[in-house]
Amino acid sequence: MNAEILAVGSELLTASRIDTNSLWLTDQLNAIGVEVTAKSIVGDDRPRLTAMLLQSLERAEIVLITGGLGPTEDDVTRDAVAVAAGKPLVFQQDLCDEIAAFFTRLGRTMTGNNRRQAHLIEGFDSLPNPRGTARGLLGEINGRFVALLPGPPHELKPMFVNHCLPRLKDKFPPQHIAVVHFRVAGLGESALDALIAPVYSTYSNPVTTILAAPGDVQIFLRALCATEAGARELADDLGAKITEILGDRIYSRNGSDLATATGALLRSRKETISVAESCTGGLVGQKLTAAAGSSDYFAGGFLTYSDAMKADLLGVPATVLQAHSAVSEPSARAMAEGARKRTGSTWALSVTGYAGPDGGTQQDPVGTVYLGLAGPQDTEVKRIQVPGDRERVRELAATSAIDLLRRRIQ
Amino acid sequence: MNAEILAVGSELLTASRIDTNSLWLTDQLNAIGVEVTAKSIVGDDRPRLTAMLLQSLERAEIVLITGGLGPTEDDVTRDAVAVAAGKPLVFQQDLCDEIAAFFTRLGRTMTGNNRRQAHLIEGFDSLPNPRGTARGLLGEINGRFVALLPGPPHELKPMFVNHCLPRLKDKFPPQHIAVVHFRVAGLGESALDALIAPVYSTYSNPVTTILAAPGDVQIFLRALCATEAGARELADDLGAKITEILGDRIYSRNGSDLATATGALLRSRKETISVAESCTGGLVGQKLTAAAGSSDYFAGGFLTYSDAMKADLLGVPATVLQAHSAVSEPSARAMAEGARKRTGSTWALSVTGYAGPDGGTQQDPVGTVYLGLAGPQDTEVKRIQVPGDRERVRELAATSAIDLLRRRIQ
Repeated sequence: MNAEILAVGSELLTASRIDTNSLWLTDQLNAIGVEVTAKSIVGDDRPRLTAMLLQSLERAEIVLITGGLGPTEDDVTRDAVAVAAGKPLVFQQDLCDEIAAFFTRLGRTMTGNNRRQAHLIEGFDSLPNPRGTARGLLGEINGRFVALLPGPPHELKPMFVNHCLPRLKDKFPPQHIAVVHFRVAGLGESALDALIAPVYSTYSNPVTTILAAPGDVQIFLRALCATEAGARELADDLGAKITEILGDRIYSRNGSDLATATGALLRSRKETISVAESCTGGLVGQKLTAAAGSSDYFAGGFLTYSDAMKADLLGVPATVLQAHSAVSEPSARAMAEGARKRTGSTWALSVTGYAGPDGGTQQDPVGTVYLGLAGPQDTEVKRIQVPGDRERVRELAATSAIDLLRRRIQ
Repeated sequence: MNAEILAVGSELLTASRIDTNSLWLTDQLNAIGVEVTAKSIVGDDRPRLTAMLLQSLERAEIVLITGGLGPTEDDVTRDAVAVAAGKPLVFQQDLCDEIAAFFTRLGRTMTGNNRRQAHLIEGFDSLPNPRGTARGLLGEINGRFVALLPGPPHELKPMFVNHCLPRLKDKFPPQHIAVVHFRVAGLGESALDALIAPVYSTYSNPVTTILAAPGDVQIFLRALCATEAGARELADDLGAKITEILGDRIYSRNGSDLATATGALLRSRKETISVAESCTGGLVGQKLTAAAGSSDYFAGGFLTYSDAMKADLLGVPATVLQAHSAVSEPSARAMAEGARKRTGSTWALSVTGYAGPDGGTQQDPVGTVYLGLAGPQDTEVKRIQVPGDRERVRELAATSAIDLLRRRIQ
């Protein structure tokens, strides 16, 4: 079963506003096994809305339209849907009386343009709105399920749950959905896909979606079945096969991010972490402390941008800095060991590199970062090379540092 | 002139993801006088994308398509647009060589599926992508301007600005636009609007847009005129009136963010800053070092989550911590003074508070943050109370700390 969502309102086509109702509606629809296959946003433009609605009706069994049900001239949804349905708008005296009563309760007077809201599309049902004057509408066009819902979320949500959802469930008895959500570090999108596509592409259910951000790839497996246990089994079956291929590159099975997953590992081991950051300037610490309760494992940190601070705060020997520079394997090593010693933490991560746009050497150009991890037994240092601008280098360096720790303790 | 934007990606149809590229693109298009009249989001579904594109081409002179240009089987944009154009996809050996070279530079090997990215639609031009392997494509279908752009924002934005926008301007010569872009700290959106709406609402040109994020409000004044000087004069006239009202709450007139604007002030004064962070865990340092060249003014920092670290690393007296707790005026003061002393910086900022969800006291509930600023003459401490969740408290605390410094030195 598939649905499309149409959001109506010229303000949703500006650079500063976004349609968020559709996210909530998607969650509601997914929960009854309905997939959202397209969303559109259209301004307060009657012919355009009619045209887009007719096209949605060709593709989807369910079309939800939000917004444009207000009392003013630029609220065009009722008119546009009536044209698409080939039905007239009919004035309803009882609705008009209700709207007038709503204003009376607020101690205000109904204005003439509110009469627009007392019109129904012939053959459609009206949905009550205890929080406003915009009635919802529900009906069929060419056998497709069509609902008109108000734009304000506090009016939309109760109306959908109380009056639209029950009708949807009657018409489309719900399927069950099970989701497996992996997060993976240390692999690019195409390398990951090359590894797992031979497996997932043989399944049409679950549907596999891969979503990539710098240093972080997410895999969603979404299984549909008439029973909950059946959906779970389908999702877990493919999940197990992908786990077999990716092994410890999977850092999370519940959607939690890398820092949170790593923090949970530290907590379970009753261990602590400190950081010594140069080019990331606090980003590693910020990530590790973003989760609530991170004081359980975050011992402290040092932001040492200059050579002098690396020497003073972390005890990096001046001879190391002079002989190898601050961006080097020995400096990363000494920074991590210094942070570990000065905070008494179990582990310490260090990051030193050229984030750009200036700096770098022939051997270590911009984008080169040394990551150190000092632990109870020894210290390891990893050199990475990150393409992209300053923001991306810092982001990937921070993520890679945390992943270095995760792999050591997982 | 009107445009439609099509975002491609099944992940953008889930309940947890939203297309934000279109907001940035809308801003870019509006700036050259192009209006966005509809936006759509479609999954990784070739026939559906082709159908929706054909419909957009009937309604709009410009269609921008984002996403779906990756190397994997579910990246369908090239195929779908080729079908809509009625043109074949053509393999380009030179593009394939470039993609291989990109992998070589990263020390990795190109996988077979990246060959998909070396295909062009016949008659379309290829747009360079220095940050990834997905080339953009640009061409015409039925006389309409069509561009295919990559989904990741750090690839999309430079490609659009450098290669798509110039071609758009050639085809649709823009009116002259002058923009004044203020950024304002220390005022909420509605309080700001109450101050300046009486002035800007009397102007229909420039158009005023207010964009709010936690701790940061941006004001755009956009004037349109047939001549450049005329547009400039219109924008500056309203800009001067708004400056008169807001005074030093305006921290930037060129769009640069608070940390960058504050860093520029420090650089011009040849002064330095260090930080002592508790609940923000590195966020202040990360913001202050996000700008290139921040080593000119960022001296260093301390991430001191625990009382022990505040005492050891910053020299906060144990008596202060015991008598007043770590979240208090005297602790914030001692942290800032300790950081300033240990780094030798001109200024030092400290942040200590209850970011939540747990913690807090009756007098200082969750959301209470003390900000310290130690300087050559004295130390000031400010107590703020931030509503919202952990992320918001940390974000607003970090921003407020930097603004404390900016106001002192501006």
